[in-house]
Amino acid sequence: MSDDDIALANALADAAGSIIRPLFRGDFAQDRKADASPVTEADRAAEAAMRRIIEERRPDDGIVGEEFGSRNEGAGRQWVLDPIDGTISFMAGRPIFGTLIALVQDGWPVLGVIDQPVAGERWVGRIGGPTLFNGKPASTRRCRELNEAVLATSSPHYFSAEDADPYMQLAQAVGGNKRQGTIIYGGDCYNYGLLASGHLDVVCESGLKLYDYAALVPVVEGAGGTMSDWQGNPLDADSDGRVLALGEPARLDDVLEALGSIPI
Amino acid sequence: MSDDDIALANALADAAGSIIRPLFRGDFAQDRKADASPVTEADRAAEAAMRRIIEERRPDDGIVGEEFGSRNEGAGRQWVLDPIDGTISFMAGRPIFGTLIALVQDGWPVLGVIDQPVAGERWVGRIGGPTLFNGKPASTRRCRELNEAVLATSSPHYFSAEDADPYMQLAQAVGGNKRQGTIIYGGDCYNYGLLASGHLDVVCESGLKLYDYAALVPVVEGAGGTMSDWQGNPLDADSDGRVLALGEPARLDDVLEALGSIPI
Repeated sequence: MSDDDIALANALADAAGSIIRPLFRGDFAQDRKADASPVTEADRAAEAAMRRIIEERRPDDGIVGEEFGSRNEGAGRQWVLDPIDGTISFMAGRPIFGTLIALVQDGWPVLGVIDQPVAGERWVGRIGGPTLFNGKPASTRRCRELNEAVLATSSPHYFSAEDADPYMQLAQAVGGNKRQGTIIYGGDCYNYGLLASGHLDVVCESGLKLYDYAALVPVVEGAGGTMSDWQGNPLDADSDGRVLALGEPARLDDVLEALGSIPI
Repeated sequence: MSDDDIALANALADAAGSIIRPLFRGDFAQDRKADASPVTEADRAAEAAMRRIIEERRPDDGIVGEEFGSRNEGAGRQWVLDPIDGTISFMAGRPIFGTLIALVQDGWPVLGVIDQPVAGERWVGRIGGPTLFNGKPASTRRCRELNEAVLATSSPHYFSAEDADPYMQLAQAVGGNKRQGTIIYGGDCYNYGLLASGHLDVVCESGLKLYDYAALVPVVEGAGGTMSDWQGNPLDADSDGRVLALGEPARLDDVLEALGSIPI
């Protein structure tokens, strides 16, 4: 991974944003994918624009995209793209979705971008370097006790029946499963950016695909946080989609303990 | 209610915003209220600033504020203030909270403002007139079938045990209680603004206080939508805190049917 790769990732985010911004709160075509999840012309056009740039500038690299699938599957370098993570927020006019761009090398995410094109907010992370938020270093905040943590997750409906119980135990541990709690819902990738910038402490989700989580890892870890699956293992291309992000790595054991034993 | 009242409501929103904006994502003092809900110096300073203006310009009017309680309780005209609706979003750096300002006359909301000071977004509604979004008329969108609706609610934890079942039946009716669903979580008052502007269809919440819902009614209804409690009754100062908003009034019966019989 080189500075050229970072420049390319920024160019991809620029291209996606220039397509998404004018469609935000406008008239856009939408339908349902085979799995019934919503998709809009903004998702498809933004991914297509990014793929054209990669195919031209990095013809030997692979691509894994949410909307248009895989290209060069055997390549060691894979660009992993989610043009709009949080399509439902985009559709509802909430500026808390994001474009996700990752470079995954031999299965490991080494470069990640979270871009919010309406608010003009971009987090760029790289393994071994500091995460930048709009060009300035971002850092997570400390969290001394899990019961003081602010927890975020996108939707209670994203947990399978078997994953809901561990999640609810974690919600209980942060004191959040009551009206006065400190759990924020909604937000998708945007919550991980806010965690990287020190505004919240823990994100817990399941059912994520590689294009949902690959870009988040370098952003969170380059800001001083940690990401893992629900057993504490690092995330790679073969992870099971259960994802944790912590701003304070020292709280990981507490989070894993709260989740309890996880069904395989 | 006069044009002067609308000018005053705008001045209140300006005053609150000028206090909230510089504290967003900054260092702000925070603690817990007697009921354990979070509060920050931004909530308190913004409400204090609005109260000072009302006390000076409308000394005979009453005030009901989330942070500092009631003044002139017997007055027929009551200014109802929530300086930050969505404090947890404010604390987590998400620009989807809002300042709520309502004028309630003889128990009925007649003027409402939803102001998002970071994004610079303001909805102003008045009974008998069109709702304005940043000065331009806003209107809700049509919804032909409930199963096509986008539903929003702030948090699953805000429903009491007895209110959770009716809510889940509504979630089922919009096809949203699965990964592919069309329910957005989080957002508090901001969801009602998005509904007024035609970006989503239904909001369903419970446990709301007068200062949480009074401002929403003129905004939603002036944009062509309707608001009620979970039995379809109009919202006044004595409502039970169970709140519905619909962009398409013709779907109200379908929503009430989905909720089923509501415990008193």
